[in-house]
Amino acid sequence: MDFSLSDNSRDYLSRVQDFIDQHIAPYESNYRKENQRFNAGPNWREWQVPPHVAELKAMAKKAGLWNLFLPDAELGQGLSTLEYAPIAECMGHSLLAPEIFNCNAPDTGNMEVLYHFGSAAQKARWLEPLLEGDIRSVFCMTEPDVASSDATNMQTTITAQGDEWVINGRKWWSTGLGHPDAKFAIVMGLTDEDADKHRRHSMVIVPLDTAGVHIERMLPALGEYDAPYGHGEVVFDDVRVPKDHIIVGPGAGFKIAQGRLGPGRIHHCMRAIGAAERALDMFIERGTSRIAFGQPLLKLGGNTERLADLRVAIDQARLLTLHAAWQIDKVGAMQAIKAISSIKLVAPQVLQRVVDETMQLYGGAAMCHDTPLPDLLAVAKSLRIADGPDAVHRATIAKTEVRAWQERMNER
Amino acid sequence: MDFSLSDNSRDYLSRVQDFIDQHIAPYESNYRKENQRFNAGPNWREWQVPPHVAELKAMAKKAGLWNLFLPDAELGQGLSTLEYAPIAECMGHSLLAPEIFNCNAPDTGNMEVLYHFGSAAQKARWLEPLLEGDIRSVFCMTEPDVASSDATNMQTTITAQGDEWVINGRKWWSTGLGHPDAKFAIVMGLTDEDADKHRRHSMVIVPLDTAGVHIERMLPALGEYDAPYGHGEVVFDDVRVPKDHIIVGPGAGFKIAQGRLGPGRIHHCMRAIGAAERALDMFIERGTSRIAFGQPLLKLGGNTERLADLRVAIDQARLLTLHAAWQIDKVGAMQAIKAISSIKLVAPQVLQRVVDETMQLYGGAAMCHDTPLPDLLAVAKSLRIADGPDAVHRATIAKTEVRAWQERMNER
Amino acid sequence: MDFSLSDNSRDYLSRVQDFIDQHIAPYESNYRKENQRFNAGPNWREWQVPPHVAELKAMAKKAGLWNLFLPDAELGQGLSTLEYAPIAECMGHSLLAPEIFNCNAPDTGNMEVLYHFGSAAQKARWLEPLLEGDIRSVFCMTEPDVASSDATNMQTTITAQGDEWVINGRKWWSTGLGHPDAKFAIVMGLTDEDADKHRRHSMVIVPLDTAGVHIERMLPALGEYDAPYGHGEVVFDDVRVPKDHIIVGPGAGFKIAQGRLGPGRIHHCMRAIGAAERALDMFIERGTSRIAFGQPLLKLGGNTERLADLRVAIDQARLLTLHAAWQIDKVGAMQAIKAISSIKLVAPQVLQRVVDETMQLYGGAAMCHDTPLPDLLAVAKSLRIADGPDAVHRATIAKTEVRAWQERMNER
Amino acid sequence: MDFSLSDNSRDYLSRVQDFIDQHIAPYESNYRKENQRFNAGPNWREWQVPPHVAELKAMAKKAGLWNLFLPDAELGQGLSTLEYAPIAECMGHSLLAPEIFNCNAPDTGNMEVLYHFGSAAQKARWLEPLLEGDIRSVFCMTEPDVASSDATNMQTTITAQGDEWVINGRKWWSTGLGHPDAKFAIVMGLTDEDADKHRRHSMVIVPLDTAGVHIERMLPALGEYDAPYGHGEVVFDDVRVPKDHIIVGPGAGFKIAQGRLGPGRIHHCMRAIGAAERALDMFIERGTSRIAFGQPLLKLGGNTERLADLRVAIDQARLLTLHAAWQIDKVGAMQAIKAISSIKLVAPQVLQRVVDETMQLYGGAAMCHDTPLPDLLAVAKSLRIADGPDAVHRATIAKTEVRAWQERMNER
Repeated sequence: MDFSLSDNSRDYLSRVQDFIDQHIAPYESNYRKENQRFNAGPNWREWQVPPHVAELKAMAKKAGLWNLFLPDAELGQGLSTLEYAPIAECMGHSLLAPEIFNCNAPDTGNMEVLYHFGSAAQKARWLEPLLEGDIRSVFCMTEPDVASSDATNMQTTITAQGDEWVINGRKWWSTGLGHPDAKFAIVMGLTDEDADKHRRHSMVIVPLDTAGVHIERMLPALGEYDAPYGHGEVVFDDVRVPKDHIIVGPGAGFKIAQGRLGPGRIHHCMRAIGAAERALDMFIERGTSRIAFGQPLLKLGGNTERLADLRVAIDQARLLTLHAAWQIDKVGAMQAIKAISSIKLVAPQVLQRVVDETMQLYGGAAMCHDTPLPDLLAVAKSLRIADGPDAVHRATIAKTEVRAWQERMNER
Repeated sequence: MDFSLSDNSRDYLSRVQDFIDQHIAPYESNYRKENQRFNAGPNWREWQVPPHVAELKAMAKKAGLWNLFLPDAELGQGLSTLEYAPIAECMGHSLLAPEIFNCNAPDTGNMEVLYHFGSAAQKARWLEPLLEGDIRSVFCMTEPDVASSDATNMQTTITAQGDEWVINGRKWWSTGLGHPDAKFAIVMGLTDEDADKHRRHSMVIVPLDTAGVHIERMLPALGEYDAPYGHGEVVFDDVRVPKDHIIVGPGAGFKIAQGRLGPGRIHHCMRAIGAAERALDMFIERGTSRIAFGQPLLKLGGNTERLADLRVAIDQARLLTLHAAWQIDKVGAMQAIKAISSIKLVAPQVLQRVVDETMQLYGGAAMCHDTPLPDLLAVAKSLRIADGPDAVHRATIAKTEVRAWQERMNER
Repeated sequence: MDFSLSDNSRDYLSRVQDFIDQHIAPYESNYRKENQRFNAGPNWREWQVPPHVAELKAMAKKAGLWNLFLPDAELGQGLSTLEYAPIAECMGHSLLAPEIFNCNAPDTGNMEVLYHFGSAAQKARWLEPLLEGDIRSVFCMTEPDVASSDATNMQTTITAQGDEWVINGRKWWSTGLGHPDAKFAIVMGLTDEDADKHRRHSMVIVPLDTAGVHIERMLPALGEYDAPYGHGEVVFDDVRVPKDHIIVGPGAGFKIAQGRLGPGRIHHCMRAIGAAERALDMFIERGTSRIAFGQPLLKLGGNTERLADLRVAIDQARLLTLHAAWQIDKVGAMQAIKAISSIKLVAPQVLQRVVDETMQLYGGAAMCHDTPLPDLLAVAKSLRIADGPDAVHRATIAKTEVRAWQERMNER
Repeated sequence: MDFSLSDNSRDYLSRVQDFIDQHIAPYESNYRKENQRFNAGPNWREWQVPPHVAELKAMAKKAGLWNLFLPDAELGQGLSTLEYAPIAECMGHSLLAPEIFNCNAPDTGNMEVLYHFGSAAQKARWLEPLLEGDIRSVFCMTEPDVASSDATNMQTTITAQGDEWVINGRKWWSTGLGHPDAKFAIVMGLTDEDADKHRRHSMVIVPLDTAGVHIERMLPALGEYDAPYGHGEVVFDDVRVPKDHIIVGPGAGFKIAQGRLGPGRIHHCMRAIGAAERALDMFIERGTSRIAFGQPLLKLGGNTERLADLRVAIDQARLLTLHAAWQIDKVGAMQAIKAISSIKLVAPQVLQRVVDETMQLYGGAAMCHDTPLPDLLAVAKSLRIADGPDAVHRATIAKTEVRAWQERMNER
């Protein structure tokens, strides 16, 4: 057992950290203001990307800090899931950084899907411009009318008609749908109701300018529209795409989803841990500088114990996530399912808890945009719901655990 | 000991409940939409009150369901703090109801201040139109640059110059400041730095159209501007008011604040409990109707236990708050300080917890305005910060408790 | 609503408090030592009652502080469940007091059973000497081989043969079975397997000297034998009692149990709250007197916040229990089932939490008999298991809550 | 980063596991019964070691599974702290195993002290027989009259007189003091009141048969005497030992203590994690086999979610402890202080929580010796108090964290 970072990981981590410190962090509060200016309110059709973002992306690309998430030496930088994990944490300190390094969701997941499962034609048309950072993409899974935590509930249909797939249904919380550069969505739907439970669904690529794609609105997450990305509600009304727009083939939806979710959850959780570290830094900063009743806040009441408990909670969440990343690299996401569910359960809860306690120290400043805390709370709470709420992951862990116990008993 | 409601309380409770069921509840989702139409975004100068609100207020007034919070038989309905408490809970189910019955913060607190401490002239000019529901008012206490949880930190100055008080300082989170009908603020500030710690501050009435009152912006609470009320940041720049605009006199600020806070916290906490009941109803509704993995959500995982724990937490918070109300009626707010701090600690936490768990059952619908849950979360979190964060109240409880223990020991 | 104690309750409370302060508290540490001397180890056949106990009982009886739990003006003191509740709390400060006032479990429950359901002959033979404090009794319900939280699991059989009932089965955790004065047990068992689920079981009175009653051992609860009472494991091997030893008649077991449990849970919970108050006093005493790192413990870390949270938790548990007592008096135990399950869930947990935190302040002294803390921990943990573990009560609360919600929905 | 066990660690782990499965586990319930027979009650002078223990120790020694904790290739097996950690966890499943492999506290700590700091003569006389398993030893640190969590409070004096050290004072919770083979104690006390705070104390070796060593009693931990080891209270009354019985020299007490505690806490925490795994196995076993309300317990209420949360809590505690072990090996215990305090805070709490929840599933069987649960609860609670209660470790973590933050800020 060796808890040191690999040289590769350490090197990239340090370069990413420097880039953020020098180029992203100083711009961040400006970025927030520009967003409020360019992108006030829910009218996504008017949203723009603040111009400096493109410049930063170009700099990062030139510096070789690009597509770090992709475990491919040529298209990415050849970092394993585990090697990338601390870098994802580092990016998580900033709400802007993942975009700058072309490492932001849902594009990362979509790139992985196309990388592992796309045809040559799909790769050429969609993966390449994504890897270049020229376009953005969307993943359409959750539906408003059914409990999407049970993915077999999904009602959107993808029906073969002649040379085409015809898509009908309603999706929401499709992240990135409001972005000016969003060009296509990967849509998951029902292709064969009568097939085995995990062979019923498929994924197709739907260019967003296809007839019948109606974006109805952007949804605010705890009041935040996350412009210029947005979380959209979209109706597919007899939307037709050519037969070759399916990924892998009919019935492969679940298999692809599983492969997509593993590393994606590592990324999400490590970013959440980075965000929690940022909030903890804010906790200490406020705790040591703000005075009440003649003392810095940290000396009052239970604040030192709170700090200790939060510190330990973050450290544990990080180790758990790194361990899950190691398992994915070693035995694959399918075999690492308990580990992946565990981090999905733990990391967002830790983030929410750290943010909640930090807010208590900031008082009114915690409730408005004078601090990043409302954004971080929205991130935390969204993460506890997206990709299956806490309860679904507890169920997975318990099921796996009982099965493992039974196997041990049988061996005796 | 008798836990029955008084006849008076039961009667008003039932009439308020009926009024809400018949007139307010059916309008509420419309109200939300109108607010989004009339009052989109932070530009409070354009905010309007949806027209049906005035009609509902007139109906409630005519029905005698008006100023129920005021423990005066003539100006209010003669309900004690304890008798009013269950009615406040009932109103708390709806975010709109308190306004309709002229029982909304901060006007209730301001009316109480003027009722108990105002001069005849102050009553005639400000209390009467508030009691009529013709104008609205603001309370300016918290400041951005100091830990306002320790009220002695307050930096705004109120200086005597000739026949006037001159006010200089910056306040924020002044609720209601964006409302078109807001006419005056009660402002707390420093009149005598050298006086005894609790005799340094005073309260003056400042008409909002006085020169030097600069409203800088409305602050979103977790993304919600609470239009058409708003939470404002305001600068007082050499603002001058006549000497008779002071309440009671110089140095009385803390005494008035204490008297104001007692019943006000009962109201806040009972409304929070009402809001928690509403969220719990939503929990059960979703839990019994939404299907995942072939079962209603309530049958899955720990949801029944969660329901039980939330139920019991609300019941306990309610009893604690009723007990505190009884103490206020019996021995006054000053003697009931431990009880009041206890409910301020407990009730908002219970609300946050119920809302947080309910959100987990609603998934994406919990994050946006399709449900009232984001509003309720903002209410809960705001309540845990406003009027002193949790930690301040824990300190008060502990101090009182140790003192009581020492007295018991001395008696032996 | 009025939270004042009734005159009757206040009067008895003050007399019980004085009696404890003057006569019981000064003896308590001696009592513990005598118990260690007379009653060391598990050999219950040698257990004795320390002689001063009988003297104290005689004094209490003479002072009219006797059978206060029984809501009968002649046999008890005519206190309602609610009026007795604060007195039970007061007794709960001391592990010895309930015995002295003839108010200790399981005798109180058994007396209530006989009082409400016993025949005249049963009352004359068993109730009278219990009321006099001359004998003690046992309640045999829980069985080792089945989940007794589901009482319908019970396997002990009570079979009619000629003029007799024949009892076969094994019971454990039968409290008081080791006491030298224990004369009979009320035994619950299966009389008719084919009857409706809640009509299958009956209760019979079994004199402990009946042939076939084999007491196998006393069980230590977290190492404590609770001598000279004890918790016994007992086998009934073809034990025969006359037909008239059944209470009410065949199939009445559940009905009697329900009636027995309501007030009994009030008593248990109020005693638990009294024990929690005692532990909290110890928390403050240690916190203010013990010095580490140059400060009294209470000034270190989160101890003041902990004190506040414990204080508020106890206050809430008390109000919840008083409210449940009021409901029992008003609508009967059957209608108060949610309230009764709620307190059974809450009060023992609060006691365990207060004791656990207090132990942390006492260090090594908390782990051994130099403090009452290990006894209190055993009491708390036992209460969380006996009469149904926490989870069973959560299930009851949730079921009742969903049903109440459905009724409200139907009314609309 | 690589989470695989080293070959060395894996090999020993598998051999220890096999030894436990084949030789220790089958004997364990007998051992408990023998202990109840040989060692009933607090009279430690009569305690005996059940004879099969010596046989098992001889077998383990012969198999080379001996002194595995000692990071010395010759005297131990050359395992690093990190390599030994999983083996300590494995031993923690059994309350007897550590003794069998000569890896039990406090002897392990004492052997480490002598190994690192002892003179050649001290090693020959005390370390060698300990390594052979021929004698046992005691560590005397905690005192009843002062808060020993602040070790500078210690009052026992060690005074130079002529050729001797004279020891006066009272110690308690000296583990192993009741063991028939206990031959000496390492005693910490005050040698120079006026020295720098961390140079005031020293450690001396005191043979237990020295005049003036009065063992007063064995202390039960939650009712458990842990015979034949015991936790003793001992008075040193003018006890005289030769000058060369001091370890290192005057004033070295704290330095030695620090070195002793680091690896010792890894051992304690890993054993706690092993114990938690055992309890979790019991949770699943009961949850899948016990039936109530027509279902196995695991299907009822929140038990699956509970299982998941406990699983994840244990996994996180293990990773945190392994990481701390790695830090100790890499930078030494002094530099790893935050990591060591973190695991001391986390692991015992996790064990207590798992045991507490498991007890809820076992009902009455959880409260008595029919299950190991009361023993495990006593272990958990003892660990949360010994070597500094939770609060002390939270303080250390917070202090280190604030300092680290300040250093980061200064670097910017």
